[in-house]
Amino acid sequence: MLVIKDRVRFVETDMMNVVHHSNYFQWFEMGRVEYMRQAGVYLIDLMNLGYVFPITDARCSYKKSAKFDDEILICVDLIELSRVKMVYAYKVKLASDYSILAEGLTQNLFTKVADGSVARIPTAIYEKLKAFHTLNSGGTD
Amino acid sequence: MLVIKDRVRFVETDMMNVVHHSNYFQWFEMGRVEYMRQAGVYLIDLMNLGYVFPITDARCSYKKSAKFDDEILICVDLIELSRVKMVYAYKVKLASDYSILAEGLTQNLFTKVADGSVARIPTAIYEKLKAFHTLNSGGTD
Amino acid sequence: MLVIKDRVRFVETDMMNVVHHSNYFQWFEMGRVEYMRQAGVYLIDLMNLGYVFPITDARCSYKKSAKFDDEILICVDLIELSRVKMVYAYKVKLASDYSILAEGLTQNLFTKVADGSVARIPTAIYEKLKAFHTLNSGGTD
Amino acid sequence: MLVIKDRVRFVETDMMNVVHHSNYFQWFEMGRVEYMRQAGVYLIDLMNLGYVFPITDARCSYKKSAKFDDEILICVDLIELSRVKMVYAYKVKLASDYSILAEGLTQNLFTKVADGSVARIPTAIYEKLKAFHTLNSGGTD
Repeated sequence: MLVIKDRVRFVETDMMNVVHHSNYFQWFEMGRVEYMRQAGVYLIDLMNLGYVFPITDARCSYKKSAKFDDEILICVDLIELSRVKMVYAYKVKLASDYSILAEGLTQNLFTKVADGSVARIPTAIYEKLKAFHTLNSGGTD
Repeated sequence: MLVIKDRVRFVETDMMNVVHHSNYFQWFEMGRVEYMRQAGVYLIDLMNLGYVFPITDARCSYKKSAKFDDEILICVDLIELSRVKMVYAYKVKLASDYSILAEGLTQNLFTKVADGSVARIPTAIYEKLKAFHTLNSGGTD
Repeated sequence: MLVIKDRVRFVETDMMNVVHHSNYFQWFEMGRVEYMRQAGVYLIDLMNLGYVFPITDARCSYKKSAKFDDEILICVDLIELSRVKMVYAYKVKLASDYSILAEGLTQNLFTKVADGSVARIPTAIYEKLKAFHTLNSGGTD
Repeated sequence: MLVIKDRVRFVETDMMNVVHHSNYFQWFEMGRVEYMRQAGVYLIDLMNLGYVFPITDARCSYKKSAKFDDEILICVDLIELSRVKMVYAYKVKLASDYSILAEGLTQNLFTKVADGSVARIPTAIYEKLKAFHTLNSGGTD
């Protein structure tokens, strides 16, 4: 599990005094991007190779409201990987007491930017993600 | 089913040339607010009565990418209602050909703003939502 | 002056119970896009021709806070036009009483997407904007 | 001058492959909040005392486009302070080469949340901001 830390922005709050629920999906994305970066996979490189990676499914269960200025931990796990898709699971925690604010999941599909068809990513990229996943989950895969 | 129409904003796009997936949850919210408004239930009134209505679950499946300037239809159904929660289902369609862009679901819980505890909304408000739901779904409830 | 109408979204509010100030720049953009559309100029066409049109200056003075669910009028004027830049002026008003919520201004520069250099837009596009501006401002230019 | 570092989020980009201009005002806000925090002034405390601090003027000049994943520096200076208002100036720089992406300015007015009237903040809070400003600008005030 990879963990990044961030702080709730004022603009992320709404008139119920808490973070608007749509922002969690942006936090998930920050975690996902960092996960891939640490695996040595850069979204820009994928895009330059003609791939895009649209989200095909996203969900979040909210346990407790994040508030302005809270320090949060975004915890990310790659739970399913193939050459055509990635599924990530997330937990957002309050940094102060590790209480869980939300849990979620997203699925990306790799597609060709040219025609939108599903595409298999190059082996080199797949292997980087797989190796990092193995390392990161502490398993033997 | 209630339907509202809107148009994709430039700011809602991302560098993959499509609408960022987090925006669909904001569109769902616009549909939900309109549904309640047409039922005669105003969020402001609920807040003035000391209730808030946090989202406890949100999910979306993406079928096809919305693009800048697309006219979209946001279709909303109240699929579960009690005095402590509401579940809405959504479809987002392209206005030009009614193709489905995304389908989703959200659950709100009614809580007291004072202490965050789950709260039963007043009968008058519940009855308005129920009556509109019955009318809107064309059923006899 | 061109006027469009919209309604404040819940997500646009912040914990001060009003619309977050950054959203006004998104409203300005909606007005600007509509202005160009009515002039027969589509951003997509410009992009397909290899132009982009970054904002180089943006400003807003806030007079009164917009609130959730307010119906607003976004009023747009093209106040300066050349083949390399456009300056628009905006007023955002409350639809209910026409009181002014904010006034602002933006400047776009036309540039080539390939190298970012300043570029002169094609005469046909410039003439459409100019003609609509003349028509819209009721003047003789 | 106070400097904070952040990284451009994917969601902050638009279909022109750069950061949407409205996001810079959110970055300014992050810098402003951090400035006040380091001065020992917490927005939450001000709000609990019955003050709000709406932005009354905001402007930004854009020099160069920030892109996805760029590390950025948000540089903040308090350039005018009284018991009823604060004016901050900002520079956003690319962390890699210190080139300037944008420069801007915002003005906040202190008002009473109860009736929106302009209000003078308590001396203790004013003095904290003033002391930090003096320290931070290296001057003798």
